[in-house]
Amino acid sequence: MTSIRVLVTGGTFDKEYDELTGRLYFLETHVPEMLRRGRCRLDVTLETVMMIDSLELDDAGRAHIVERARASRETAIVVTHGTDTMVQTAGALASARLDGKTIVLTGAMVPYAFGSSDGLFNLGSALSFVQVLPAGVYVAMNGQHFQWNAVRKNTQTGVFEGV
Amino acid sequence: MTSIRVLVTGGTFDKEYDELTGRLYFLETHVPEMLRRGRCRLDVTLETVMMIDSLELDDAGRAHIVERARASRETAIVVTHGTDTMVQTAGALASARLDGKTIVLTGAMVPYAFGSSDGLFNLGSALSFVQVLPAGVYVAMNGQHFQWNAVRKNTQTGVFEGV
Amino acid sequence: MTSIRVLVTGGTFDKEYDELTGRLYFLETHVPEMLRRGRCRLDVTLETVMMIDSLELDDAGRAHIVERARASRETAIVVTHGTDTMVQTAGALASARLDGKTIVLTGAMVPYAFGSSDGLFNLGSALSFVQVLPAGVYVAMNGQHFQWNAVRKNTQTGVFEGV
Amino acid sequence: MTSIRVLVTGGTFDKEYDELTGRLYFLETHVPEMLRRGRCRLDVTLETVMMIDSLELDDAGRAHIVERARASRETAIVVTHGTDTMVQTAGALASARLDGKTIVLTGAMVPYAFGSSDGLFNLGSALSFVQVLPAGVYVAMNGQHFQWNAVRKNTQTGVFEGV
Repeated sequence: MTSIRVLVTGGTFDKEYDELTGRLYFLETHVPEMLRRGRCRLDVTLETVMMIDSLELDDAGRAHIVERARASRETAIVVTHGTDTMVQTAGALASARLDGKTIVLTGAMVPYAFGSSDGLFNLGSALSFVQVLPAGVYVAMNGQHFQWNAVRKNTQTGVFEGV
Repeated sequence: MTSIRVLVTGGTFDKEYDELTGRLYFLETHVPEMLRRGRCRLDVTLETVMMIDSLELDDAGRAHIVERARASRETAIVVTHGTDTMVQTAGALASARLDGKTIVLTGAMVPYAFGSSDGLFNLGSALSFVQVLPAGVYVAMNGQHFQWNAVRKNTQTGVFEGV
Repeated sequence: MTSIRVLVTGGTFDKEYDELTGRLYFLETHVPEMLRRGRCRLDVTLETVMMIDSLELDDAGRAHIVERARASRETAIVVTHGTDTMVQTAGALASARLDGKTIVLTGAMVPYAFGSSDGLFNLGSALSFVQVLPAGVYVAMNGQHFQWNAVRKNTQTGVFEGV
Repeated sequence: MTSIRVLVTGGTFDKEYDELTGRLYFLETHVPEMLRRGRCRLDVTLETVMMIDSLELDDAGRAHIVERARASRETAIVVTHGTDTMVQTAGALASARLDGKTIVLTGAMVPYAFGSSDGLFNLGSALSFVQVLPAGVYVAMNGQHFQWNAVRKNTQTGVFEGV
């Protein structure tokens, strides 16, 4: 069985509702709960790299994600990431030329804590693509997968589309 | 983009709770709602072949599923199916030698109508595998994929495992 | 603040889905989780009397519920109960002439474990009625409350209605 | 059966997640869906007065709520309201001396659209209290009810408590 490392970076995926302030914030990642709910039996190692909104991710943060992907002993890597700058981080990972590694970035449009989240669908999708795609950097959203340099997020529709 | 046909056959995936009788039953498939929730943008054609518990699926029913897979113009096919006899139907599909077609069977341990269902995870997984696996018949459950003749459902644990 | 005893007897309220057998069954009551979710700050003492389908409740079982209501130090009592024989148990409680006690029976048409359950609404309703109604035995369902001898469950519609 | 008017004013109860901006906003009230889920059979007339965060509610807005309560032909009135200034609006309603009317304000700490919302519990509670409490203005939260001038929201804990 493929060993997979999941690098958690936050994003909408993991936002919570703070009932005292009425704001969305980050507490702990929901990925373990999502894996349990999916009855996932893959060999997954989870690593929380950071818990932030991807709009607040700067070059240093992005370099840190690249560093953690480089350090991964697993050659199959899923990165959970905010959708707003997911493509940018995919580019940073591709520039790092982590040869022999298959890296799939995914996220969610609606927090998992909401009943209507797409997160569980996307996580199932990303974990599947990462097992079978050749080495490279990909974005998996909306049931599709794209090469890192052939995708953009359409900010009008919220959908990832090929370019 | 790969065109995908989803053949719906029922199974736990699609069971509903009948509040008058207190029993589980089938009404309509939840797959369209699940695709919406997953913000799925794949080219999916949905076909409801039957809506039954897979324990009640007999040879005639199984032949009917094979027939619908054979008739499919799409070469990528996902079959939603009860878990109890999923492997048996995978075998029937393999015996039919539908050359050039990638067929992925998936299902759920808990009905989608329950909050805690694994269905959305499995659907995201199956739709992803079907796009990238070579022609053949597979079972996708628990985040994994198996060749049709190399898997069984462990009835003690409810987990699909390689044989 | 009124002290309230909640007598749990099972019913649809507390049914779970057994993913190995595909059947509904009882594990532990969801009432504590429901009270947490409702951010309930009432002084509630919870007592699980039994965990059964109310269709299986016989005279001995019904006598046991009456006994536990009699033993309750709290004069405000909510009984969670299957809907099929709720009115019958209300009658048994009324016959016991537990003077000075306000007893409200409630239940659910859909298990709490299902996303679409009416259970949380009914629990909020029953806990409210029990604080303000005079001594007596009542059924609280569908947002309404009825005297024990002025209500029946319409088995065609699943709705409780006055008689 | 008591006729009840529900005046909707927005608040956390009705907040939605905007998946394009990642912000919470108001669309349409969830109260009809909540009444369906609670299988509510009360005679309820729903009136959306406004859809705002109660922190943004000013004197004019508050006067408008009072006006709609005064105009109500139903003498049992539930007001759904943000929790932050619910007590203030309760005061405005009390000052208006709407004799003969029972007015119950309620809300939620977590939006109904979130799986973990207390909204359904609170709505069940408020609709029950309003049927049996004598004329007056009340706040119903956390399973409790308070006279309008004997309650405050503890902003540290998010709980309504007697004063």
